[in-house]
Amino acid sequence: MLTDMYRSRNASHPTIIDRVDPVIWSDQGHCPMITAEDEKFYEKNGFLFLKNVFSDGEIAKLRREAGLVENSDPTDEEVISEPGSDEVRSVFRVHNKSDVFSKLISDDRLVAIAEHFLDDDVYIHQSRVNFKPAFKGKEFFWHSDFETWHTEDGMPRMRALSMSITLTDNSAHNGPLMLIPGSHKKFISCVGETPDQNYKNSLKIQEIGTPDQKNLSEMVDENGIVAPVGSAGSVLIFECNTLHGSGNNITPYPRSNLFFVYNAMSNRLVAPFGATKPRPNFLAARKDIVPVRSGRQKIQAAE
Amino acid sequence: MLTDMYRSRNASHPTIIDRVDPVIWSDQGHCPMITAEDEKFYEKNGFLFLKNVFSDGEIAKLRREAGLVENSDPTDEEVISEPGSDEVRSVFRVHNKSDVFSKLISDDRLVAIAEHFLDDDVYIHQSRVNFKPAFKGKEFFWHSDFETWHTEDGMPRMRALSMSITLTDNSAHNGPLMLIPGSHKKFISCVGETPDQNYKNSLKIQEIGTPDQKNLSEMVDENGIVAPVGSAGSVLIFECNTLHGSGNNITPYPRSNLFFVYNAMSNRLVAPFGATKPRPNFLAARKDIVPVRSGRQKIQAAE
Repeated sequence: MLTDMYRSRNASHPTIIDRVDPVIWSDQGHCPMITAEDEKFYEKNGFLFLKNVFSDGEIAKLRREAGLVENSDPTDEEVISEPGSDEVRSVFRVHNKSDVFSKLISDDRLVAIAEHFLDDDVYIHQSRVNFKPAFKGKEFFWHSDFETWHTEDGMPRMRALSMSITLTDNSAHNGPLMLIPGSHKKFISCVGETPDQNYKNSLKIQEIGTPDQKNLSEMVDENGIVAPVGSAGSVLIFECNTLHGSGNNITPYPRSNLFFVYNAMSNRLVAPFGATKPRPNFLAARKDIVPVRSGRQKIQAAE
Repeated sequence: MLTDMYRSRNASHPTIIDRVDPVIWSDQGHCPMITAEDEKFYEKNGFLFLKNVFSDGEIAKLRREAGLVENSDPTDEEVISEPGSDEVRSVFRVHNKSDVFSKLISDDRLVAIAEHFLDDDVYIHQSRVNFKPAFKGKEFFWHSDFETWHTEDGMPRMRALSMSITLTDNSAHNGPLMLIPGSHKKFISCVGETPDQNYKNSLKIQEIGTPDQKNLSEMVDENGIVAPVGSAGSVLIFECNTLHGSGNNITPYPRSNLFFVYNAMSNRLVAPFGATKPRPNFLAARKDIVPVRSGRQKIQAAE
């Protein structure tokens, strides 16, 4: 059995430990999609916001697809509604529901960066659209994705990242994603045992697997909060352990973002480190894992 | 009986009508506390944000008072808790609970502007602190204060305004007050009859007396949203009919603001225009009304 490098949900008091994994796994040059400064920023802050990656035409097409998956079968357990309303909050496994999304996961503008940061072939651990609908979109409380992926899904190491493609404008007003820069370098263990089928609640309102107020406050006092905003077509890349969350949305404008989580092939899931039963495949892929693409070109140091 | 100039909650469809009242009632010069440009801005946009009105020392004192009223008797009906938690959301009638707040209502930096804009002696229609606590502070949905004050409280005309003194920093992240500029020039009638004792719910989550999504969307498309942010000690003045709201607060920093609502003496409450019974005095003063101060100096045109 693998050693649990990041124990959580096993004590009555939260603790903070240092990250043991690199942030950028590759030690070779930098990815040609971004600058050396971008990489330094990502390494230091745990996120990177790239504006105007996708054209208006591409985004229009992606929004159409998002609309289709939004209106798919509401009894499907992969379709999550907002707490207190029937509005769709999230739809999961969207790259299996849409050919357009399925193609997009291997778009060089995304996957080349993922492969470089993780220094490996990569696969989709999870994909989803978070709709954050106008007027009624509710919050996502602060969390590290990795804390849940490790504890409930059995992801061994911090060798995964999310890419969020903004399908609508993300403004300061409609509940943009907020991040705590630098938080990816610490691991806050969370208190509380994981209840069975915790995901059925946590996808609406997360209570287990969220950091305690004291450690959160200290981390924000030290590092601040950043909420990257920009027009549709931007890409926010954030490291699997970067603390993030977002407020609600009372504006007339939905804040809809498409998320692809890339994990290194060498970091495939094992048994959960802090739950009795793994979560379903739509939340954490463990069956029939294949790389998003083959023939990855390792970036050469000479550049 | 007075004519109802702004009918609401009496039809199954919302309608929009033009404001019949002036925004700035005085036609004499401008208030020496602010500039002529400030007044033009307020007339056009329905709000005005003044930074650094109160010193750090003054704010420290006001925060201490806010802490005292926050920790007053939780069974008091004037103390409102957040939906879903015991955190204090609002405390009303604070100028009667604290000598410091009681003195502050007649501070020249506030009342002189109110008297000028309303062109009358003024009294406190309502006072409160909205705490919007760290991590758990919930939203205030879009609304016109006047719609409620008119319909539920019997305020005849749009001749009142709010002053919000920021007791903590209001940042883009901790649920700052958002306004729709120019919305004060239209009156959106709301649908739905007013239930008895509606305030017992509406102070936590307002559902009756909020504008419909279609009219809200059109108004925001046309005018946008502004969220003034600044450090503690600022004053936001907003007209009684300006649409405003705010999102929730998941940050470690409370967004606590002190509100004084000034109403013109000539605009005292009559019977509610759309409810059977008036709301309690702590929400809408109608007993023993006296001006905040006497001996108002009318501003002369010559300046």
